[in-house]
Amino acid sequence: MAAELSPEKLSEIHRPTLDQALDAIRTRAYWSPHPEHPKAYGEGGLPGSLGAAEGKAAFDAVLGTRLDLGQPGTDGWTGGEVSPYGPELGVEYPHADPDVLLPAMGAAMGSWRAAGPETRALVCLEIIARISARTHELAHAVMHTSGQAFVMAFQAGGPHAQDRGLEAVAYAYEEQTRTPRSADWSKPQGKRDPLRLHKSYTAAGRGISLLIGCNTFPTWNGYPGLFASLATGNPVLVKPHPRAVLPLALTVQLAREVLTEAGFDPNLVALAAERPGEGIAKTLAIRPEIKIIDYTGSTAFGDWLETNARQAQVYTEKAGVNTIVLDSTDNYRGMLSNLAFSLSLYSGQMCTTPQNLLIPRDGITTDAGAKSYEDVVADIAEAVNGLLGDDARANGLLGALVNPDVKARLEGAAALGDVALTSRPVVNPDFPDAVVRTPAIVKLDGTKPDDGAAYLSECFGPVSFAVAVDSTADALDLLRRTIREKGAMTVGAYTTSPEVERAVEDVCFDESAQLSLNLTGGVYVNQTAAFSDFHGSGGNPAANAALCDGAFVSNRFRVVEVRRQA
Amino acid sequence: MAAELSPEKLSEIHRPTLDQALDAIRTRAYWSPHPEHPKAYGEGGLPGSLGAAEGKAAFDAVLGTRLDLGQPGTDGWTGGEVSPYGPELGVEYPHADPDVLLPAMGAAMGSWRAAGPETRALVCLEIIARISARTHELAHAVMHTSGQAFVMAFQAGGPHAQDRGLEAVAYAYEEQTRTPRSADWSKPQGKRDPLRLHKSYTAAGRGISLLIGCNTFPTWNGYPGLFASLATGNPVLVKPHPRAVLPLALTVQLAREVLTEAGFDPNLVALAAERPGEGIAKTLAIRPEIKIIDYTGSTAFGDWLETNARQAQVYTEKAGVNTIVLDSTDNYRGMLSNLAFSLSLYSGQMCTTPQNLLIPRDGITTDAGAKSYEDVVADIAEAVNGLLGDDARANGLLGALVNPDVKARLEGAAALGDVALTSRPVVNPDFPDAVVRTPAIVKLDGTKPDDGAAYLSECFGPVSFAVAVDSTADALDLLRRTIREKGAMTVGAYTTSPEVERAVEDVCFDESAQLSLNLTGGVYVNQTAAFSDFHGSGGNPAANAALCDGAFVSNRFRVVEVRRQA
Repeated sequence: MAAELSPEKLSEIHRPTLDQALDAIRTRAYWSPHPEHPKAYGEGGLPGSLGAAEGKAAFDAVLGTRLDLGQPGTDGWTGGEVSPYGPELGVEYPHADPDVLLPAMGAAMGSWRAAGPETRALVCLEIIARISARTHELAHAVMHTSGQAFVMAFQAGGPHAQDRGLEAVAYAYEEQTRTPRSADWSKPQGKRDPLRLHKSYTAAGRGISLLIGCNTFPTWNGYPGLFASLATGNPVLVKPHPRAVLPLALTVQLAREVLTEAGFDPNLVALAAERPGEGIAKTLAIRPEIKIIDYTGSTAFGDWLETNARQAQVYTEKAGVNTIVLDSTDNYRGMLSNLAFSLSLYSGQMCTTPQNLLIPRDGITTDAGAKSYEDVVADIAEAVNGLLGDDARANGLLGALVNPDVKARLEGAAALGDVALTSRPVVNPDFPDAVVRTPAIVKLDGTKPDDGAAYLSECFGPVSFAVAVDSTADALDLLRRTIREKGAMTVGAYTTSPEVERAVEDVCFDESAQLSLNLTGGVYVNQTAAFSDFHGSGGNPAANAALCDGAFVSNRFRVVEVRRQA
Repeated sequence: MAAELSPEKLSEIHRPTLDQALDAIRTRAYWSPHPEHPKAYGEGGLPGSLGAAEGKAAFDAVLGTRLDLGQPGTDGWTGGEVSPYGPELGVEYPHADPDVLLPAMGAAMGSWRAAGPETRALVCLEIIARISARTHELAHAVMHTSGQAFVMAFQAGGPHAQDRGLEAVAYAYEEQTRTPRSADWSKPQGKRDPLRLHKSYTAAGRGISLLIGCNTFPTWNGYPGLFASLATGNPVLVKPHPRAVLPLALTVQLAREVLTEAGFDPNLVALAAERPGEGIAKTLAIRPEIKIIDYTGSTAFGDWLETNARQAQVYTEKAGVNTIVLDSTDNYRGMLSNLAFSLSLYSGQMCTTPQNLLIPRDGITTDAGAKSYEDVVADIAEAVNGLLGDDARANGLLGALVNPDVKARLEGAAALGDVALTSRPVVNPDFPDAVVRTPAIVKLDGTKPDDGAAYLSECFGPVSFAVAVDSTADALDLLRRTIREKGAMTVGAYTTSPEVERAVEDVCFDESAQLSLNLTGGVYVNQTAAFSDFHGSGGNPAANAALCDGAFVSNRFRVVEVRRQA
């Protein structure tokens, strides 16, 4: 049977997009093929895509059903997701016997390798296109597993996640094709005939890749590893977070569909859902068949993987402590509103949300005059209150707390210091069971060792610390120490001084942290754009890889050379 | 003081070479700027280079002296190298206090980072050019530490090693410059003004890089890691094998000279020579300042490094078991002479030397008629004897045994099975104390478990095993098992069957091993050419990295982005 999706057809549809993506990662100018606006999907919008109502209907239709992926080794069914907004999803997923599933996945590798980097990339692009067409459906799945508000689930879980997946494919393609498929080599030997060899170079995947998904950004944090591994020739086993299975299960379903249509073995992508408390990530991670692991989650388990899954290349994104240094600004209002948004978005449940605001005890200079430490803290608190004063708007920005641990941490924050901004519950009229909370700000002293225990730990969720420091120089020392010891996904700074700017840059260069300077408009420190911004640096304890760069893809395959006498 | 070597001057001298190297790693055609012939150096040859007599004189002049590198933290002197050819070298090297030296090296990083990828690459090229000019001198240093014969020490320790260093610089430059230095990003916002950011991207080294050198190929195995790390912004601490200090100490001296002339801190490259039995590699490897380690040597210590030096990126080349599959040939004489050379070169003391020759029990088909297992083994033995019958030629190919362990292994080989080729001592008239031995071939049975203990272990040195197998299919099974369990730097095969050829390729693709097919001329399985051949694959237990590819350089630096509101 001829494949419905031939390489020629795939090339016709997707090669221009691949070329644009390759260009974008080189120029790092703005680019995305995935529209951000919900109205861009459905009739009259992106061809073949589900509109708002269709997407919602598709999501509703999957609730309470059994999602049969047709995987080998299915030995039962498991499920039990409960939306942070309240409803039980009721979806059942296949539970896999790894002794059957893993060999089936391994058997799929040979023809996938033989397909070559371009066909692999184009198949990946078709998978991403199918995902894109169902962005509305997936947005609901992300919303009801992560607790993100709908618009954020739509954008971050849809086009932005798809962008990151596509970016990984572009890096993978470029990395594999920097070595030609073959070369004729002729070495002069003086008067004798030259030595001649014909050489071929084959990008060979390393083995099965395990994606360990997270609760808060199942698609955004999952797609880079999934597509980087698949595009470099590796089957991918997707082990979602037990509370965020649906978005990745739907992704696996689409991937298996496309692989089949393109004439490949669907077992190149499979799901490993787990029974409650089963903890299969630990078992799978040390299987000899698993050669690559992508993980986003706690530092404890990330460290465990790095220590124990020694047979695999392990890419981890773990906890970190993100800092904002406040030195001076020429746009005080812009700074306050920018920070208020950054602290509020998704209730601070982003790995990129600022946690520690380092503010000189004697205050900062601004275009609105000198502001004391107390002024700055009060003004940030007021800006947050202003931003979230309207409940509808608050719900749209905050989403729901993803799990009871976050709520418990928030409730414990008041005990850590003086509360400058008190968290308040917000009622979500559509989902009365959702736990919605505005952020808290707690005042701490950067010179008190007791306070250090708080601000030098990640307090994941809607809690930030206004840390009083003796000077900007002390802030930079604390920044350096924080990145080095605890890691950071993001660093922000506000300053009008070129010297301070250079000093902050030097700390970030030395400690390998991504820096945003003087953001006062509609770009926030916690957001990065694929093709242009790196997410994490891979050089500090918060993550051992960046999304996305050469290092993220180059060790997912090896080049095997065959030399023949010519 | 203005630097003698300005970026402009360096660019004028070296940019064309860098561009050629960048082109070569993309086309993988033959290329080298470093002449292989000893007569190409000296007056009338490579400008500024030492000729044969001058090189020898320079080597003689350093013997018995103290090599003061002007390093901070020098707390004494150490030495004690004895040439495998007999003479004591009598050179003393600085012994370093790491608590002084490492901070001094770390302090050199900032300005090296600020210099940017191009200037770093050009400075590296100037260092390599200085090394090239002293190839004759370094050849003696390599010969009298590794035991290689002079011509091999000259070529492998000189131009070929310099090629590998240059190749690493080219990869490092390309990897760092695939992201632009800056970008203007503008994201459309419908009717509103676009969001605009100015972004800069800085390649930042990770920290101090530790090079742990080996005894047999101090420069060839040392230069890739040294230059990959230096070119990506990291200071490099060179810890040579205690029996092979001189070649790397001279390299460090030249690097420090060039760095100084180019206006950089010479402490970007420093030597860590050790006192007898001190074992400083273990201590240095787990220092928090050490962020990268390059190592060539035993599997035991390589595994130790990978397990314990968790703060560092660790690149290891360890032991492996290299296999040749003999199925059939249309050039029996060519095959025999090619194999004889491969087994003899440097007394089999190459990580790429074939060890196991898998030969079907029922023999192979050849252009000279059917040959039984016994025929093939006897003919290979005869070919080796023919090649090494003349003592002068034997000395020129074999060199000397590098240490008593190799001699002991060779002496123990007779006990492993029937000896098909007996090793004989060869007298070196110039160096009567040199231990020179021709290779031994021992017959083993691939179906006997007891024999497996021998052929499934690396027997480093001039010992190979003629392993009888039931069929070519069994040979391929054993090949697969050998690569998977023991690793392999090289695989060779002789076959006239397209099916067998494809089957061998599939094993090598699956298990990630570099394959040479039907070599019957002047290219040998144990030799690789920089810019074209990969040395190792990085995908089997023999090595976790290949020389040289993107993965070898991409994690030696991180890209730090600074975003500013535009």
